[in-house]
Amino acid sequence: MAHLGSSVEYGLHCLLWLVDPMAGPASSRDLAELQGVSPSFIAKIFPRLEKAGIVAASEGVRGGYRLGRPASDITVLDVVDAIEGKKPLFDCKEVRGLCTLYGGKRPAATTGGICAIHAVMLRAEQSMRDELARTTLAFLAATVESKMPPDFPATVQNWFSGRMSARADARGHSTGPPRETRKRETP
Amino acid sequence: MAHLGSSVEYGLHCLLWLVDPMAGPASSRDLAELQGVSPSFIAKIFPRLEKAGIVAASEGVRGGYRLGRPASDITVLDVVDAIEGKKPLFDCKEVRGLCTLYGGKRPAATTGGICAIHAVMLRAEQSMRDELARTTLAFLAATVESKMPPDFPATVQNWFSGRMSARADARGHSTGPPRETRKRETP
Repeated sequence: MAHLGSSVEYGLHCLLWLVDPMAGPASSRDLAELQGVSPSFIAKIFPRLEKAGIVAASEGVRGGYRLGRPASDITVLDVVDAIEGKKPLFDCKEVRGLCTLYGGKRPAATTGGICAIHAVMLRAEQSMRDELARTTLAFLAATVESKMPPDFPATVQNWFSGRMSARADARGHSTGPPRETRKRETP
Repeated sequence: MAHLGSSVEYGLHCLLWLVDPMAGPASSRDLAELQGVSPSFIAKIFPRLEKAGIVAASEGVRGGYRLGRPASDITVLDVVDAIEGKKPLFDCKEVRGLCTLYGGKRPAATTGGICAIHAVMLRAEQSMRDELARTTLAFLAATVESKMPPDFPATVQNWFSGRMSARADARGHSTGPPRETRKRETP
């Protein structure tokens, strides 16, 4: 299994729809349906992104998720850590101390400080994290946008607007919070 | 679960016993028992290291595994790839092509080339791999040795010699290959 799973991939793709010029607000269901991925999967990811301040939720029939701060201040590493937690590249079990010649004593001189094998893994992990921290959501969105037809952002905005209007109509223009927001408030 | 598992940790620790001045040859069972880890686990790892040329096996009652090339020519990345295979940090599912607005068509202009999200993950992975490739087994062994009491390498050599002698005695000084080598030849 890959270290960074589908939740990171799906989360990043859905976040891109919240970056200007396509910017939300949007429900996690709309984001998932636009992206063509599982709504229940995305519904689990967005509260983690909200907790990390990457998105912020607003209430009301036209509420939903927006970015919690400028896309240029959100790195891929921020998103990875918010979704996956800080899972280590390598989980050192301190095997060096098990050498049979130590007779169960783990001599401080030999097994003190960080294990040399753990140290190289930590350097590799830091290098990976540094690289993920170098790319922002704004940069990703600009790259994606550069490949789109010029009218595509407007098409996306229209799609979101259509979904919101349909929801408002279905509720008789209720001013209450959308179903998703209510659900999050009373888990 | 960590990306690089116990097999990498155990494999690297056992390999360190094959670096001068402690250098083998040693059976995978002796290496595992010296290190205090599971012999059956190590017995599965060493054939992979042999296939990658990291270790070489010799036959005879004093045979066993030696390093297949100088420790300064074996990087941590070599060991990781030999043991784990080249498993990706991120497994791109090409989610971008699933956007509902594409109507199942995946337009070449928008979904051609590498996905921007996949690209940043590949850069992070390469950065991690570059760091693992910067550290050699010789460097690791020197770091570990610098913490050992001066007479420890001789103690290790004596331990290996004692194991071999005991095995030779048990077989009546047979000149045939040790059990492990025979077993590997006829899997």
